[in-house]
Amino acid sequence: MSTPVKIALLGCGTVGSEVVRLLHEQATDLTARVGAPLELVGVAVRRPGRTRDTGIDPGLFTSDAMGLVQRDDVDVVIEVVGGIEPARTWLLEALKRGKSVVTANKALLAEDGAVLHDAAAEAGADLFYEASVAGAIPLLRPLRESLHGDRVTRITGIVNGTTNFILSAMDATGASFTEALEEATALGYAEADPTADVEGFDAAAKAAILASLGFHSRVTAADVYREGITEVTATDVASAKAMGCTIKLLCIAERNHDAVTVRVHPAMIPRTHPLASVGDAFNAVFVEAEAAGQLMFYGRGAGGAPTASAVLGDLVAVARNRRTGARAPSESAYAQLAARPIGEVVTRYHVCLDVSDRAGVLATVAGVFARHGVSIATVNQAGRGHDAVLVIVTHRAPDAALAATVAELRTIDAVKAVASVLRVEGDL
Amino acid sequence: MSTPVKIALLGCGTVGSEVVRLLHEQATDLTARVGAPLELVGVAVRRPGRTRDTGIDPGLFTSDAMGLVQRDDVDVVIEVVGGIEPARTWLLEALKRGKSVVTANKALLAEDGAVLHDAAAEAGADLFYEASVAGAIPLLRPLRESLHGDRVTRITGIVNGTTNFILSAMDATGASFTEALEEATALGYAEADPTADVEGFDAAAKAAILASLGFHSRVTAADVYREGITEVTATDVASAKAMGCTIKLLCIAERNHDAVTVRVHPAMIPRTHPLASVGDAFNAVFVEAEAAGQLMFYGRGAGGAPTASAVLGDLVAVARNRRTGARAPSESAYAQLAARPIGEVVTRYHVCLDVSDRAGVLATVAGVFARHGVSIATVNQAGRGHDAVLVIVTHRAPDAALAATVAELRTIDAVKAVASVLRVEGDL
Repeated sequence: MSTPVKIALLGCGTVGSEVVRLLHEQATDLTARVGAPLELVGVAVRRPGRTRDTGIDPGLFTSDAMGLVQRDDVDVVIEVVGGIEPARTWLLEALKRGKSVVTANKALLAEDGAVLHDAAAEAGADLFYEASVAGAIPLLRPLRESLHGDRVTRITGIVNGTTNFILSAMDATGASFTEALEEATALGYAEADPTADVEGFDAAAKAAILASLGFHSRVTAADVYREGITEVTATDVASAKAMGCTIKLLCIAERNHDAVTVRVHPAMIPRTHPLASVGDAFNAVFVEAEAAGQLMFYGRGAGGAPTASAVLGDLVAVARNRRTGARAPSESAYAQLAARPIGEVVTRYHVCLDVSDRAGVLATVAGVFARHGVSIATVNQAGRGHDAVLVIVTHRAPDAALAATVAELRTIDAVKAVASVLRVEGDL
Repeated sequence: MSTPVKIALLGCGTVGSEVVRLLHEQATDLTARVGAPLELVGVAVRRPGRTRDTGIDPGLFTSDAMGLVQRDDVDVVIEVVGGIEPARTWLLEALKRGKSVVTANKALLAEDGAVLHDAAAEAGADLFYEASVAGAIPLLRPLRESLHGDRVTRITGIVNGTTNFILSAMDATGASFTEALEEATALGYAEADPTADVEGFDAAAKAAILASLGFHSRVTAADVYREGITEVTATDVASAKAMGCTIKLLCIAERNHDAVTVRVHPAMIPRTHPLASVGDAFNAVFVEAEAAGQLMFYGRGAGGAPTASAVLGDLVAVARNRRTGARAPSESAYAQLAARPIGEVVTRYHVCLDVSDRAGVLATVAGVFARHGVSIATVNQAGRGHDAVLVIVTHRAPDAALAATVAELRTIDAVKAVASVLRVEGDL
C-alpha cells in the first residue's frame, strides 16, 4: 500500500462536511483512483469545540488554520471557507510550501487569481478550483484542457442559482422582486445578506474565472461590468412575457479580435432559448468555439454535495499528481487579451418609456434613437389616459450608443420617465 | 524556442483535413498552449498522389502508415481512419514504441480498448480518445477526471446523430423510417451503407466507452445490448405523440450495486424530458452521480470541425505531457463491475397489440401480464371493425419478465400480432 496523501481541510460548513462524508464513504474507490489512501489530518474551523455531526475524530479540529497549513506532513490543502482574507494568506502559504491547493473560492480567484497561479507555478504545485464556478458541473476542466485545441469565442451562462430562483419565481407567479426574494430566503436559496447574489457580485467573479480560462488571459472581477437584478420589476417580467421572452441573469464573456468584454446583467432571452428553461437553482453554461460550435453544460450549481463532488474530483487529480510526481498544466494566460468596457458591447435593447400621449412624441423619440445611430426594430404604444407607454426594441447597437440615447431621452419633456432598459440576448 | 513536437496523422478525410487546417490556422495559439510548436511530419493516406485541397506539402503524404508510425522522430500519432484493422496494428506499434496516441476510433476502443490501454501503460505513453464519443462535447475528460471524486450511477445519452436526424424527421413529418433515411442520405447525414448507425452499432461502441469510464470497469461492445431503429414505424411515432412522448435512440448505462447494464435501443421519452428537444444531428448525454446529481453535456456529435476540435484538445494535452515528461492518468478499471444481460434491466414498456374485438380479450391479455409479474399502468383500446388495437403501458418490470410476457402473448389466439414493443424512459 502506498503512503497516504495527507489532507488539511479549511472550513467545515455545508461543503466541508460533505467533503468529509464523501472522503469517508468512498474511501475504497478514492484509494483505487489515486493509487494511495487519502488521509484527513486536520480540519480548521472557527470553533473547534462545537459539537458536530460529521463523524470526524474531534482531535482533528483546530482553530489554527495557519498552523495546519504549515504542517510538514500536509500534502494537499482544501479551502472551502470563502472570502478574500484570511483565505488568501493561508493558500499562498500552502503554495509557498509546495502543497497542492483545491479551493472553491470564486471571490479570491476572481480578485487575485494571478498571485495564486504565480505562487503555484513557482512552487511547482497544483492549484485546482473546479468547484468555484457552477458547482458540480465539469466546466473549468473542459475549458482548461478539452478546448485547448480550439478558439473559444463566447461564453454565456446562468451561474447563480439564487438569482435564477428569484427570476424563475417572478416569471412563474408575477411576484415582485421583493416577494420572490422573501420566498428564496424562506426556502434557503438566498442568504440572510443576499447582496453578493442579487447584485451580481457572485456571478461577476465566476464570469472573470470563465473568461480567464476561455480566453487564455487574466480577467479579474474588476474587469466585469455588473448589474444585479434588484431593479427588475414585475412589469419588466410581464413585458418580457408579452414578447415571448423570459428574464435571466446572464454572464456573458465575448472575444472580439484582440479584446474581450465580460458582463453580468439581467437580459431578456426568448423562451425557445435553451437557457430559458434552466429553472430554479440549476446552472447552465454555453460555450461557443470556432471548431466545436455550440456546447452546453448543465447541472446543479450549488449545494453541499454537488460542490463537494467538484472538490473531490480536483482532490483525486492533485493527489494522483503528488503520488506520481506529475503536475497539471499551469495557468494559460499567454494571450493577454485586454478587457474592454461595456460601452463596446454590441447587443439589442428593450426600452420602456412613460410618455405623454400626444401627437409627435413618437417622432421625437425616434429622432433621439436615430441621432445616436441606434436602429429601432419594433415599437409598441399603449395609451393610459393622458399618458402612454412606449416599448421599443432595437436592432444591435453599441452599449455606449444606447446609453447616450437613454441619457438624451431623460432630458426630453415628452418623456416622463425611462421606466426600464433591458438588454436582449439570443435570436428573437 | 522548444523542440517541436512531431506529429504523424493517419487518415486525411473529413476529420483529418480539419485537423490539418486547425494545426495550421491556430499554430501560434497551439504553440503557446503546448510550450512548443506542433509539427506535422507525415500524413498516411490510401492514395498519396491524389490531389487534395488541404494546403499540406505534398511531400508529407505517404501510403506507408506503418513506416510513418515507426519513424523515430514521431512523438504523437493521430488516427482518424476508423475501423478495427489496420488501425489496431498501427496504434499498438505506436504505443509499443512509446509514442502517444490520439484517436477518434470508437469501434476499436469499444472492441479492444483493454489491449490499447495495456500497451499505453507498459510504454508509459498517453492514449486519448475524446473524439470517439459525442464529437466536440467534452465528455470523456469529465468522466476520466472531473467525476473521479464521485460515484456515477447512470449515463443516458443520444450519441448518434444519424439516427437522431431520422427519428426527428419521423416525429416532425410522420414519415416512415425508409423515407426519413432517404432524406438523411440525401442531406449527407447518413452514409451510403447506414448499417452501423441505424442498427445501433455506432451507439453501442460509444456506450461501451462511456460505461468503461463511468464505472471504472472494462465494458466492450459485446457487453452492450443493442437494438437499432429500423423497426420503428410511423405508427409507433404517432402512438408516442399521443402519449406526449417522442422516440429517441438512447444509450443507457446503469450501475446496480456490483454490476452494470449497458444498452442501446429506441425508447419513448416524454416531450418534457431535456433529451426530447435534442434535434437533428446534435448529441446530448446525461450523467447522474451520487453527489453531483444530474449533469448534462450537449453539442455537435459529429462533423469534421467539431470532431477535429476534440482531437486537437487531446493533442495539446499529450504534446504538453511529452514536453514536460508527464503522463495522463492511465486506465481506471479497478472496479471490475460485471456487465449483466438485458433481462436484468428494469424499465417500463409500451406494448401495442392487434387483437380480436370481442369480450374477454382484455381479461386474457391482462392475465398474461399478471402471470409474469408485469404490472399494467394504462390500457387504451381502439376498435377497428372486427379487430382492435390494445395499447398497454406497464409499470417498471424486469426486461426478462416483459420478454416472457410478449412470448406468451404471441401464442394466444385473441392476439393477432404484437405490433410493437418499446421501452419507456423518463418520468411520464
